[in-house]
Amino acid sequence: MSLFSLPKISPVTPVLRDQIRVKINTKTKPLGSLGALESVAQQIAEIQNTMTPKLQNPKLILFAGDHGITEEPVSLYPKDVTWQMVFNFLRGGACANVFAKHSDIDVEVVDAGVDHDWDDVTNQLIQIKIRNGTSNFLKTSAMTKEEASQSLQNGINLISDKKYNDTNVFLFGEMGIGNTSSASLILSHLTGIPLSKLVGKGTGLNPEGKNIKLQILEKAYQRTGKLSDPLEILSEFGGFEIGMMAGAMLGAASKQNLFIVDGFITTAAYLLAYHLSPTVKDYAIFSHVSDEEGHIIVLNHYQIRPLLTLNLRLGEGSGALAAYPLIELSVKFLNEMASFADAGVSDSDTKA
Amino acid sequence: MSLFSLPKISPVTPVLRDQIRVKINTKTKPLGSLGALESVAQQIAEIQNTMTPKLQNPKLILFAGDHGITEEPVSLYPKDVTWQMVFNFLRGGACANVFAKHSDIDVEVVDAGVDHDWDDVTNQLIQIKIRNGTSNFLKTSAMTKEEASQSLQNGINLISDKKYNDTNVFLFGEMGIGNTSSASLILSHLTGIPLSKLVGKGTGLNPEGKNIKLQILEKAYQRTGKLSDPLEILSEFGGFEIGMMAGAMLGAASKQNLFIVDGFITTAAYLLAYHLSPTVKDYAIFSHVSDEEGHIIVLNHYQIRPLLTLNLRLGEGSGALAAYPLIELSVKFLNEMASFADAGVSDSDTKA
Repeated sequence: MSLFSLPKISPVTPVLRDQIRVKINTKTKPLGSLGALESVAQQIAEIQNTMTPKLQNPKLILFAGDHGITEEPVSLYPKDVTWQMVFNFLRGGACANVFAKHSDIDVEVVDAGVDHDWDDVTNQLIQIKIRNGTSNFLKTSAMTKEEASQSLQNGINLISDKKYNDTNVFLFGEMGIGNTSSASLILSHLTGIPLSKLVGKGTGLNPEGKNIKLQILEKAYQRTGKLSDPLEILSEFGGFEIGMMAGAMLGAASKQNLFIVDGFITTAAYLLAYHLSPTVKDYAIFSHVSDEEGHIIVLNHYQIRPLLTLNLRLGEGSGALAAYPLIELSVKFLNEMASFADAGVSDSDTKA
Repeated sequence: MSLFSLPKISPVTPVLRDQIRVKINTKTKPLGSLGALESVAQQIAEIQNTMTPKLQNPKLILFAGDHGITEEPVSLYPKDVTWQMVFNFLRGGACANVFAKHSDIDVEVVDAGVDHDWDDVTNQLIQIKIRNGTSNFLKTSAMTKEEASQSLQNGINLISDKKYNDTNVFLFGEMGIGNTSSASLILSHLTGIPLSKLVGKGTGLNPEGKNIKLQILEKAYQRTGKLSDPLEILSEFGGFEIGMMAGAMLGAASKQNLFIVDGFITTAAYLLAYHLSPTVKDYAIFSHVSDEEGHIIVLNHYQIRPLLTLNLRLGEGSGALAAYPLIELSVKFLNEMASFADAGVSDSDTKA
């Protein structure tokens, strides 16, 4: 019996596709000259099925969780940084807070499975903790199948909350010491790309540290052998924050809301969602190529072309937030720029 | 006798360099994890010689000019689009206006040499016209040496106006049908890279049109033979808007103000300024790699790594404006993010 019910996700409707394209093409600019921003504008207008799309009440949701694999030497930072950074988010001192404030985006923080018992932050922190961190997946499954299902369902349920009724765009990010390790294993199982190409420096390992991490993750791979079922992969390697993020993406897509994917770990969550329900891709914009070495390999595997390449590797939605102004500009040029006819500007002969 | 006096440009001072680096490195994030944004923050803090840099009263200045080379079939759009787009800028309907408004940036439009006599727009348009467009450089020099000097000096003078006393960051852009042709020739002469690698589709030529354009520009190259003096290159190939932009960059750098370089044509102006006074580079941030084919080749030649690659090829400062939010985020993380000590977050062992 699964605790998880996959929501129905409708593909975006192509009803206005040609009209939107004409609107973009008759703006006072050479044909196609806004490049990737034209694709973004087209996608958002199609998602919202309107000639005048809007970005309403954007929310950044940060999912935090701990990882049993941090018992092994896979990360440069101690596990306590997860809960310490949750406090930092709640106090407004993290990069995510600074970037979100710039674009008037609310930040919400979810305890999906942090190894910490909170005292006095209950009002601000969304507490949907499944357990105080996953088990060490070198030795055993990170979660039970039930916990994996529950983490997905928690993400779906969260997004369906009526407090988000006026929100039509979500940014997702994460915090979890050790979670590049989970992400590498998830991505290797989903894509068939060898782990050696998907294990990177994380928060900043040197080549020796990276090699030790790879050896540990290869042992964890051997424990299960190759897996293909997304739910099984999630339960074997975690984490709670990754499962909830995947669920939240499914939830956003089922509400026909745009969502913005951050970096390496968020991409692992996205690909769990995608392998559960491929239509989720219609609602996703990919913000950036992370400096974590495996990210570009996975993106190329799925022919995904994100907006930015800035060598970011911070997580916590920072890449999604950095790309957000470009998404705003895309919507604004579509709504606010004059057409050739409006402005009395001569078009080229080739478009007559 | 030159009409142009090269201003003194001081290199940025390294006085605070180490302190700024420490400030960046002790923010609550893995070391180096904000990638290119860390370099931007470091550069701006050094330019302003402060631990708390600010972006004050940003101005986008758009320089417009016409080109005699449009007598030849080098562009998809008629020359009249230059003055028509000037009206579009003044009315607020262009991409530049929409993007500038998003970031609260004032837009100023300069007639550097547009082939149009204005009636009732004198208040809004900065009129420093040298002539109603350059001469056809296939047949003769685009400008006289005096005009080239004057265009540079006009740019320097403009930026020294006291109305910009409270501005410490400039974005530069251009409008001028035919000006990718000028830019290709300028860049080929400055770099020694063959024209065939630097002539692109401009506003959207097909391969046949691009080939015709290349043949015309190769004839223009043969008219003079290889040149190396920036002033001579400018006078031979124009345009007035490119010369004024180069002057404006020299002027901004001489005031120790940051400026943001847009795409292919703005890069040609930048490189004229750079070859006149290499220190100008300390004050420049490169916003994007244009879809105009030669841009990446020139950027690589100078080992310049812009922030964005979005396949933009619109000009009018649109790439600089698209990158501006990232520059704002860079300044903000430096000023607003908590440090490990502020936030009570454990740092990694490797930085102790």
